[in-house]
Amino acid sequence: MKIDHPNPIQWQFSERASQLQSSFIREILKITQRPDIISFAGGLPSPQTFPVERMKASFDKVLSENGKVALQYGPTDGYAPLREWIAQSLSNEGAEGARIVPEQILMTSGSQQALDLLGKVLIDEGSRVLVETPSYLGALQAFSVYRPEFASVDTDDDGLVPASVAAVAEGARLLYALPNFQNPTGRSLSVARRVELVETCARLGLPLIEDDPYGALSYKGEPYPKMLSMNPDGVIYMGSFSKVLTPGIRLGYVCAPLPLVRRLELAKQAADLHTAQLTQMVVYDVVKDGFLDQHIPTIRALYSAQCQAMLDAMDEFFPAGVTWTRPEGGMFIWVTLPQSIDAMKLLDQAIAAKVAFVPGAPFYANAPQTNTLRLSFVTVPPERIREGIAILGKLIAADLAA
Amino acid sequence: MKIDHPNPIQWQFSERASQLQSSFIREILKITQRPDIISFAGGLPSPQTFPVERMKASFDKVLSENGKVALQYGPTDGYAPLREWIAQSLSNEGAEGARIVPEQILMTSGSQQALDLLGKVLIDEGSRVLVETPSYLGALQAFSVYRPEFASVDTDDDGLVPASVAAVAEGARLLYALPNFQNPTGRSLSVARRVELVETCARLGLPLIEDDPYGALSYKGEPYPKMLSMNPDGVIYMGSFSKVLTPGIRLGYVCAPLPLVRRLELAKQAADLHTAQLTQMVVYDVVKDGFLDQHIPTIRALYSAQCQAMLDAMDEFFPAGVTWTRPEGGMFIWVTLPQSIDAMKLLDQAIAAKVAFVPGAPFYANAPQTNTLRLSFVTVPPERIREGIAILGKLIAADLAA
Repeated sequence: MKIDHPNPIQWQFSERASQLQSSFIREILKITQRPDIISFAGGLPSPQTFPVERMKASFDKVLSENGKVALQYGPTDGYAPLREWIAQSLSNEGAEGARIVPEQILMTSGSQQALDLLGKVLIDEGSRVLVETPSYLGALQAFSVYRPEFASVDTDDDGLVPASVAAVAEGARLLYALPNFQNPTGRSLSVARRVELVETCARLGLPLIEDDPYGALSYKGEPYPKMLSMNPDGVIYMGSFSKVLTPGIRLGYVCAPLPLVRRLELAKQAADLHTAQLTQMVVYDVVKDGFLDQHIPTIRALYSAQCQAMLDAMDEFFPAGVTWTRPEGGMFIWVTLPQSIDAMKLLDQAIAAKVAFVPGAPFYANAPQTNTLRLSFVTVPPERIREGIAILGKLIAADLAA
Repeated sequence: MKIDHPNPIQWQFSERASQLQSSFIREILKITQRPDIISFAGGLPSPQTFPVERMKASFDKVLSENGKVALQYGPTDGYAPLREWIAQSLSNEGAEGARIVPEQILMTSGSQQALDLLGKVLIDEGSRVLVETPSYLGALQAFSVYRPEFASVDTDDDGLVPASVAAVAEGARLLYALPNFQNPTGRSLSVARRVELVETCARLGLPLIEDDPYGALSYKGEPYPKMLSMNPDGVIYMGSFSKVLTPGIRLGYVCAPLPLVRRLELAKQAADLHTAQLTQMVVYDVVKDGFLDQHIPTIRALYSAQCQAMLDAMDEFFPAGVTWTRPEGGMFIWVTLPQSIDAMKLLDQAIAAKVAFVPGAPFYANAPQTNTLRLSFVTVPPERIREGIAILGKLIAADLAA
């Protein structure tokens, strides 16, 4: 019973909706999922590392033993035993580490949701937000919705430069940093810089967000101390099960000082009530007896070998004038081309030659450096890595000769 | 290695964060989960109805056959076969129904997330938003974050009064309605009013949100036609698996005209990337061969019997001057007390007598009617329903005599 001749709606979107742009990476991914393309563009962990059988066993166990609870509505802050486990893990960071209580932990639908909730609760239109140069694209996207003014904090080859924070901190609501094997650069902050950054932010009264999806993926198995442990009253820590277990379950968490976590919880209640109990109960069942201690080293070994394969191939095939990072963990290598080459144009040539990567420009909040690009090695076998890097090297050399 | 003497952070929250309030219902639920309390306060479906074994079988099947895909990142819009199934179901609404295409469907983390995304994309600070009197609390909460000006549309015993829309529609961004077995009143809109409402909104160019979590729970099994089918270019339809399958998996969807759904998808990408693939694949496996056609009648039968038990007890025990709705589906009965009784004060007395309900005031966007309350019958067995209603009846009679 359709009505006759309805007026077409003249959609009036909110001003914030005008900030919404599709992630350039997700657009590239659509092109590059063709099997004939060697794709270094992905940000996805390798499905080889997913402990499917272990998780299947836990789904079966939780649904058999506690199905009606697992499938019912649950508390907004999350499944209590998992929050306790996380608080305990974060408290175990060395003898001098901070004590984290479960009340500080809010479970989220992936750590992307934590970024959205932090933006929602901390950012007004025009608020200053400090980010690294370059920064994680998903964070720029999440914060952009709330229409901040981004200020970029200087970085050098060793990552964020703490001494450059004060100059841009006036009125800032937060500083967002990804100190371990950063996405996109693969860089990690030294211990000295962590201390200096935490002290600087504490002196300025500036909330410091420590986003840490890759921290456990240190190839040598020696993670840096968390900035959270240095000042738990001023650091907001974000963790995720996406890179150490599987991303598709969408499970992350934020650890924040109590006044903030309470606001985040209210924002989450309005946003989606809570994250699936079943998923949290399953993840708790998987991790509670130390499974990750055995599992994570297998991910590290795979990624480390493929990272090395890519670095070796770059040494062999990339022409002089190209530089790149040498990550000690994580999923990404960052390449700086000679100034004359635009990575976006190189991408067109590369796709024609059946190789893909992500140009660096979208990772900059301001003033993009167009001669940069990000390579991921985690889903490509070593021989394909070598093949793809050889092709890229030839294209770059040809561009330089042109 | 904690740093010395950090300054405490003076938290500066966003203006929108000042709008965040905990759901009054969730606060009441904390008190009323004690097993000695007869609670009519819940909004939770009965766990008796959860098809745990069926879902366990599908989790096992999906993880066995397709685990690595199910556990990997997925597309923001959702799992394509499930979106196709939903579009097909919505298109099957009678021969004259509208044709819905899968591109109009965006999967969400429960339909609460659809409310948040709609608010994010459609509401600016001060935008007028039209809601029923009273309206669903979760929608008021979700929209409040974006700081609209709520205008209440009149309702009578038959629900929303379409003729009263035009008077408050000037500059409104949307009208939010829950036409089937409304939460909190249990009322349903007649077919004539649906047509009139859809025509009115179409004439005014006003987007009409049709939130429909309970539509399938018609006790007689004869659902009303969806307003979506009357004008698919002007109606935004929200559906959920929470009440027909289980709520804890957090799976809902929104069906919207293409210009809007594209914006919602971008907002979702920034908010949480996507909803768990595994959950969507499992739900698709459960529903694709008609499981709901067998399952939903069992839920209807349970709720219908318990609704009747409550109505019978109310007829027997409630004093003259109290009136209530007689729902033909869904989970709630709405009670109007004599004007002299404040339901909030009655709640204190009731909890002391070990009975709980939800006072009606929080469901009003403006001018709360304090002599109203909401009763849910779905999780309480008939003999306990009778016992609890008898206690409430006595308390009301005593208040009237005082």
